[in-house]
Amino acid sequence: MKPEIKISLIGSGKVATQLGKTLFKEGFLIAQVYSQSKKNAFKLSKQIEAQAITDIKKLNTDSSIYIIAVKDDAIEELAKSIKLKDKIIVHTSGTVAMDVLKNCSTNYGVFYPLQTFSLEKEVDFKTIPICIEANNKNTTTSLSYFAKSISNNVQKINSEQRKIIHLAAVFACNFSNHLYAIASVILEKNNLSFDILKPLIEETATKIKNSSPLKIQTGPAIRGDKKTMEAHLKLLSKQERNKKIYKLLSKNIVESKKVLK
Amino acid sequence: MKPEIKISLIGSGKVATQLGKTLFKEGFLIAQVYSQSKKNAFKLSKQIEAQAITDIKKLNTDSSIYIIAVKDDAIEELAKSIKLKDKIIVHTSGTVAMDVLKNCSTNYGVFYPLQTFSLEKEVDFKTIPICIEANNKNTTTSLSYFAKSISNNVQKINSEQRKIIHLAAVFACNFSNHLYAIASVILEKNNLSFDILKPLIEETATKIKNSSPLKIQTGPAIRGDKKTMEAHLKLLSKQERNKKIYKLLSKNIVESKKVLK
Repeated sequence: MKPEIKISLIGSGKVATQLGKTLFKEGFLIAQVYSQSKKNAFKLSKQIEAQAITDIKKLNTDSSIYIIAVKDDAIEELAKSIKLKDKIIVHTSGTVAMDVLKNCSTNYGVFYPLQTFSLEKEVDFKTIPICIEANNKNTTTSLSYFAKSISNNVQKINSEQRKIIHLAAVFACNFSNHLYAIASVILEKNNLSFDILKPLIEETATKIKNSSPLKIQTGPAIRGDKKTMEAHLKLLSKQERNKKIYKLLSKNIVESKKVLK
Repeated sequence: MKPEIKISLIGSGKVATQLGKTLFKEGFLIAQVYSQSKKNAFKLSKQIEAQAITDIKKLNTDSSIYIIAVKDDAIEELAKSIKLKDKIIVHTSGTVAMDVLKNCSTNYGVFYPLQTFSLEKEVDFKTIPICIEANNKNTTTSLSYFAKSISNNVQKINSEQRKIIHLAAVFACNFSNHLYAIASVILEKNNLSFDILKPLIEETATKIKNSSPLKIQTGPAIRGDKKTMEAHLKLLSKQERNKKIYKLLSKNIVESKKVLK
């Protein structure tokens, strides 16, 4: 049996939901769920046997850890209403500075799970990298211990590093998803199903597990296959934005090749 | 038992290797493997119990199906040296026109497996979409029957559609891989390991199996989070090419949002 650790969850969105459900399953006691929206607060709190609150002033003061998982630009404002003396408080953001929590408690930090979450789709936290940071050694140790109870991939990452990781994630994930979206629109405009690309997309993302993406780049740009690139630009003739992206990324692929040499 | 169908394989690269091995495993008789390179021809032929040839004039004439799996720009030239009367001949390219094979035989077509292959890493052809096309109905039927013996996802795709699919694949896969490469360089320049992003990359590619990528776009651009985007551009201050890509893709994400509304 785990010693009973009480958690308060501030937020009811994707991160709060998946984190809350995981912590609940792992045997943590979730004391409260806060959300501005009564409906959302109740929805999540019911699933994890917590009390729902919609007024941040009603936040309990006897939890061991307070997790703020709300939108990035709402963290700082919300933090102003939280006073906890020495209880550990963290936010889950990749971009927000740790210090926005410095007036909440003498022990504060960041608990950033590096994954993309959905409200419904459950994820296995065991494989999710959790980046932790805290304002002192004891809190770092506590957070590390806490994070390791749900993930096998806990890393101490300072605020500067966290920003770099978030930036890299925007390239590798947000932008890749946008390219999937462009591909899906190109196909559907031509009455072809996006389904046909899915095995290739999956394999492309799988390949980089064991190989550097720089070394396994394929496609017309890296081959210097101008004939195919010209044919592609012709196919995109009336899609100015897609043409721009095609040209810029192709050019960049060619130039990266030079860099590698 | 399968009726014995004889195949000749022209090429010894990634596609030829994975296709050859799969066909061999499925009980097809691989009569010959052609490659310009003696070493490569022998390497593959040994694995699939075929005869290795390095002179295209020595190509046998009694196989049922001839598969050309060489570089796109080598297909047309190689085809000039192949005369087979009525045996089925196909190439495996996403971009080359079917008609470059019209003087090889009265029955010709395309057998395009929509996947990214490696020399070493084995793939499961069952899930790979195979796009087939042929110059007449009988050949289409034969090719379809043949393709279905290794894949559960065989689709009749004409040359125009195949070009569109290949273009979409460049966006979704070649370009995504390049974004992975950019992310890996950003991380490594800051002494961070690319490993930390791999679970996120995998989940991003998995999510689109059941959701439209347009609808699940995340990140600062779709949220209109200008503060984060500015901070990212600042981090990229000395990386002009990455900054250009960041700006263009972010702008495009914002504009796609308008399109969806």
